[in-house]
Amino acid sequence: MNFDNDEFRIREARSRDAADPLRSFRSRFHIPYRSKDAATTNDRGERDELIYLDGNSLGAMPVAVPQLMDDVIRRQWGTDLIRSWNDNGWIEAPSRIGSGIAELLGARSDEVLVADSVSVNLFKLLTALLSAQQSDTRRTILCEAGSFPTDTHVASGVARLTGCRLMTAAPEDLAASVDDQTAVILLSHIHYRTGARWDMAGMNRQAARHSVPVLWDLSHSIGAVPLNLPATGTQYAVGCGYKYLNGGPGAPAFLYAASDCLQHLASPLQGWMGHADPFAFEDSYRPAAGIERFLAGTPPILSMAALEAGVRLSASADMQVVWTKSCELFDLLTELVAEHCGSMELITPTKPAARGSHASFRHPHAWPINKALIARGVIGDFRTPDVLRLGLTPLYTRFEDVAQAVRILSHILKTEEWRRPEYQQTARVT
Amino acid sequence: MNFDNDEFRIREARSRDAADPLRSFRSRFHIPYRSKDAATTNDRGERDELIYLDGNSLGAMPVAVPQLMDDVIRRQWGTDLIRSWNDNGWIEAPSRIGSGIAELLGARSDEVLVADSVSVNLFKLLTALLSAQQSDTRRTILCEAGSFPTDTHVASGVARLTGCRLMTAAPEDLAASVDDQTAVILLSHIHYRTGARWDMAGMNRQAARHSVPVLWDLSHSIGAVPLNLPATGTQYAVGCGYKYLNGGPGAPAFLYAASDCLQHLASPLQGWMGHADPFAFEDSYRPAAGIERFLAGTPPILSMAALEAGVRLSASADMQVVWTKSCELFDLLTELVAEHCGSMELITPTKPAARGSHASFRHPHAWPINKALIARGVIGDFRTPDVLRLGLTPLYTRFEDVAQAVRILSHILKTEEWRRPEYQQTARVT
Repeated sequence: MNFDNDEFRIREARSRDAADPLRSFRSRFHIPYRSKDAATTNDRGERDELIYLDGNSLGAMPVAVPQLMDDVIRRQWGTDLIRSWNDNGWIEAPSRIGSGIAELLGARSDEVLVADSVSVNLFKLLTALLSAQQSDTRRTILCEAGSFPTDTHVASGVARLTGCRLMTAAPEDLAASVDDQTAVILLSHIHYRTGARWDMAGMNRQAARHSVPVLWDLSHSIGAVPLNLPATGTQYAVGCGYKYLNGGPGAPAFLYAASDCLQHLASPLQGWMGHADPFAFEDSYRPAAGIERFLAGTPPILSMAALEAGVRLSASADMQVVWTKSCELFDLLTELVAEHCGSMELITPTKPAARGSHASFRHPHAWPINKALIARGVIGDFRTPDVLRLGLTPLYTRFEDVAQAVRILSHILKTEEWRRPEYQQTARVT
Repeated sequence: MNFDNDEFRIREARSRDAADPLRSFRSRFHIPYRSKDAATTNDRGERDELIYLDGNSLGAMPVAVPQLMDDVIRRQWGTDLIRSWNDNGWIEAPSRIGSGIAELLGARSDEVLVADSVSVNLFKLLTALLSAQQSDTRRTILCEAGSFPTDTHVASGVARLTGCRLMTAAPEDLAASVDDQTAVILLSHIHYRTGARWDMAGMNRQAARHSVPVLWDLSHSIGAVPLNLPATGTQYAVGCGYKYLNGGPGAPAFLYAASDCLQHLASPLQGWMGHADPFAFEDSYRPAAGIERFLAGTPPILSMAALEAGVRLSASADMQVVWTKSCELFDLLTELVAEHCGSMELITPTKPAARGSHASFRHPHAWPINKALIARGVIGDFRTPDVLRLGLTPLYTRFEDVAQAVRILSHILKTEEWRRPEYQQTARVT
């Protein structure tokens, strides 16, 4: 690289990395070599590492995980066996990890539970909220059109099951669509594709004027943007463990209900672990007094254990500092793309409060461009029909990663490398 | 031990272990030392191992697991990251592990799916069956009274949600309780407490005469007793991964629907992974054509991976041979208990076809007796109010384990060692 002509601001990026208050966090994650097959070094003789801009889809692995999991697997399962439910705290894992997540939500430790998946937790809370709805005329579930599919899919399933209506509205029309027939509003705080963020406090206030509860999906928020659920008047939320919480593939999800709202909520999914006294093996169901009433079956302990390591790591960072860096990374990324990759159209709002921690670009050939990036060790992802998403995860994404990613993207666009036949093939998971 | 007076048939047990056609399987499991803290040897200079009679609650760890999990964690998650959904087959895991379980069910490979927990899968199938019910007058869910609580708890939640009735009947009255108001029957194939087994084929036939579908919970059957779902006319089933399948703590569960019954079943839990084309991110829900329609959220890959190792191990054993040994272990256990521990009352049916692979004994002091056994390295479990359960898992339980366990139990009863104060304390998980 010719540093006399630093058109991609690589030198500047390196200086910023050196001054980054979060720089020590990167060593707490396993960042693999750029090549899957070889331990390569770059032109400065440093470890040549993958540029991973997909932590918004699957977070990198905390280095603490392998040893921790070895203990959970060999000692807790292998040796202690069934005794681990008591002796190694397995039974408390859903509440214990939930209380770690509560710190990131500004919530009370007893308001958050780890259980099941986002889809299942959405189902539980949505159905509970509809069942708790006193009014016979409030029978509409209101969702954002074009939101992450599982939100609307779950909502449409719940609507069918409960005889309610599902109504979707474009984000700009949503507030005006709330009326005296609205039973509940379900919103993704940050949009999976565009990265656009809702004004939580504002939306909660508007809904409250109509006495409508809002259920928030925080999958793209938790661990990425500062959250304070009480301060924004948020009563109900769910979210994901495998994105910015770095909890591992398919990590269990969480569920939040403000403590003063919990008492009238009954889970439709009455599994034994949500019982007030699971080991009394009573014939009749008595829900647990607290948030544990939203437990259903036996939790997947191995996946829970990895999530706990990720949560601990995120909870040790200052989310305001994380967010400040995210904004700086975003600015560097979007400035460089605007300058060098003119055909990529930014569709993410630029105003910090209006977005999350990924930047999305539209391009008619986004699919093969993403494949060409991956082949060169830059991992973002594609979202149909024409979006390249680049996630910024301040705990391990460096300014230099962003600068180098744009340098490579620019090269791929200029040379039209993305036209290679091997980059046109589709895959089962995009 | 005085072998001249072999009242506990230890010598005989050792001979039977030496001749056991399954004896090589034990080395494929990690059987810990009897003491958690010390590597001890017995009077023959052999590794002094824990007598683990709780595989019916949490199966022992296959020795293949630590290395396999290390690969899943370090290479698949740590290095390959998001690419693993395609490159390491994560996306196919629910179907692939399902097809392994299908071998144990005598089912087609596309009739079984691994997903969620038993509770969640019961909910999905039960609700789907009620929604598919054509008749307006069939509004009763029929369950066995005193069955595993999650079954009736889930059923009562579904009943409340769908405006149906939950009816429970004692096992002997159950068949007579089926009538033209019955919408669905939910039964645990093998009773968690007593070990009693239903005649699946007979019950399916009786239900079919009333055109009532039966949903079977196979949690205590899978990997323990030979199953052939098509031959018994079984159309719907769920089951557990962490008991006899040795899939690890809280391992994901499975769900079976006969292929000719699938088409009219819609999951109420419409998560994105159950969509016909999850990565098309369509606004409207189209269920997958096959059993994958019962997927909901993103599966917990780490827990799935451990389960796969357990399933592979069970699928490599001949279930008829496993069952034959289970019966021989049961006979040895119950004969020795009858002879030496007269105060323990066997409540499990003795006829092989009428039971599963654990033996349950009633005793007014079952709780402290179980604690005293554990302190001496014999792990069974307690089920309220007064039952000691001893599980027989032929892949790793030896005849000698059974004989030694009874020798120790007899000692505890004779000396009243169970009266020690430390054995009276209750625990959160029993």
